[in-house]
Amino acid sequence: MDINGVRRILNEKDNFTILTHISPDGDTLGCGFALCRFLRSMGKKANVINGDKVPHRYEFLCEGYYPQEFEEECVVAVDIADAKLMGDALKRYQEPGAVDLCIDHHISNTGYAKETLLDPTAGAAAMIMYEILSGMGEITKEVAACLYTGISTDTGCFRFENTDSRAHMYAANLIETGIDFYTINRKMFELKSRNVAAAERAIVSQMKFYLNDKVAVNVISLDTLKKYGVELAELEGIPSVALTIEGVAAGVTVKEKAKGTYKISVRTTDELNASRICSDFGGGGHIRAAGCEIKGELCDVIDKVVAKISEYI
Amino acid sequence: MDINGVRRILNEKDNFTILTHISPDGDTLGCGFALCRFLRSMGKKANVINGDKVPHRYEFLCEGYYPQEFEEECVVAVDIADAKLMGDALKRYQEPGAVDLCIDHHISNTGYAKETLLDPTAGAAAMIMYEILSGMGEITKEVAACLYTGISTDTGCFRFENTDSRAHMYAANLIETGIDFYTINRKMFELKSRNVAAAERAIVSQMKFYLNDKVAVNVISLDTLKKYGVELAELEGIPSVALTIEGVAAGVTVKEKAKGTYKISVRTTDELNASRICSDFGGGGHIRAAGCEIKGELCDVIDKVVAKISEYI
Repeated sequence: MDINGVRRILNEKDNFTILTHISPDGDTLGCGFALCRFLRSMGKKANVINGDKVPHRYEFLCEGYYPQEFEEECVVAVDIADAKLMGDALKRYQEPGAVDLCIDHHISNTGYAKETLLDPTAGAAAMIMYEILSGMGEITKEVAACLYTGISTDTGCFRFENTDSRAHMYAANLIETGIDFYTINRKMFELKSRNVAAAERAIVSQMKFYLNDKVAVNVISLDTLKKYGVELAELEGIPSVALTIEGVAAGVTVKEKAKGTYKISVRTTDELNASRICSDFGGGGHIRAAGCEIKGELCDVIDKVVAKISEYI
Repeated sequence: MDINGVRRILNEKDNFTILTHISPDGDTLGCGFALCRFLRSMGKKANVINGDKVPHRYEFLCEGYYPQEFEEECVVAVDIADAKLMGDALKRYQEPGAVDLCIDHHISNTGYAKETLLDPTAGAAAMIMYEILSGMGEITKEVAACLYTGISTDTGCFRFENTDSRAHMYAANLIETGIDFYTINRKMFELKSRNVAAAERAIVSQMKFYLNDKVAVNVISLDTLKKYGVELAELEGIPSVALTIEGVAAGVTVKEKAKGTYKISVRTTDELNASRICSDFGGGGHIRAAGCEIKGELCDVIDKVVAKISEYI
């Protein structure tokens, strides 16, 4: 489906349920609340539903939001590549035919929705949402803040290779509405509690280097989380730390999910393909950031990942 | 002088000396080498002169650069607010009338040059340089990399409040030339050696909090620099660390210059004016980032700064 098709649906229908993905990030929530606010300003009814709670840092996106009552007429999924990513709480929307429209930028989109607007060249789904909405009416400051958040988070504040001139052009237009992008970016990329900062330092001070210092590994144990009183989700800055060290081509973060079960996150520079490394363990993701799960003793798990990386280095 | 006046000078003259400021940053060097490359591509002669050595991270800006021989016809200062900022090595250009043209964005510009193009609304001098050059001819990839570096560094990669839609528009156009902005930003904002990372962690783990945790102070001692084998200039990431802690309104970095002499850097959120705090100690700077020098015992120096901040909090 193309942009005009999406605009037609948004114009024709009146009562929308908007779905965002679990472990919500700035792009899915930015898209969801931008669309919801825009539809409501058109006099339509719309709700945003997520299987997880909105994390603290993203709460400003739903400021003034309240759930509305209506008979669902159109279900729109934003930034959701796979119906499974709606999570167990939204199982009913995982049924075939439950989602009317999907707006996404993941090349891996499974095509679960009746209609899909997919633009894998967009660094953020919020860029596609900007294109849709800016052709339908005025982008208010509130909507602009949501869209900017999506673009900024998914492009790493215009640093990642997925940033293109479109991302900058849309940002230029969005900040013209007077949004407080300084505070948005501080919330997205900088602000952390003293506990989180202390936990990060403790973890990174134990960083281990392998393969001539080309690989750096950070371990987040359940004990560390407990000691500093922080949640795993609060330590999302850790995976990017290893790649800030000169000479490191692969940064591995080993997160203890439960005793003997580890979630592995791999970040790479252009020397290595993170997705390929993780897919050998049944995981996957992007070229520069991917993940997988491995069971076993911590030292064996690290050995396995490092050995796998050594095959590709 | 307006942009057309500057373009006229650049067109009329043939042999240019371009001056950049001491403790060079991405903006002054980006402007300098962008202008130099552009003038040389016009068949003119041009050199960039700096009182300090170009720091390692900025070396890519002068890739392929070599000094040319010519009789100096026009001296251009870029991003230099005050003749003093040329440093002792360039004393001869500090004489009245020695600089023909200054291109700058500092509102504090002292007007030392014969002609000045000043645009204090530009977040980076490189934005002014982009406006000048893009109207004169094609911006090559090499020139674009220099200009992008200037814009990105002075806007904190589009995060600081001085970022405007112009900054994003120019970035959009510049990255269209195919520059490797990912690597540029990694060099500018992320990459550090293991020693620097270890020194940063050691310093930040000693961060002290004052005034109900509204003020955070980091101390960089000569002993720490020696212990980790790093230069003070390599720890330029430290001043921004304090403000990443939730609730901190002023981040103070105390750098030991010599026994009993401390360089103070103050960073603030929108709750406080860093420039006012520092000017009370004979220093100055911007609203959110300023500096000064204080002599005394370390603990007294910290007490003085904290006491001064408490007057404004």
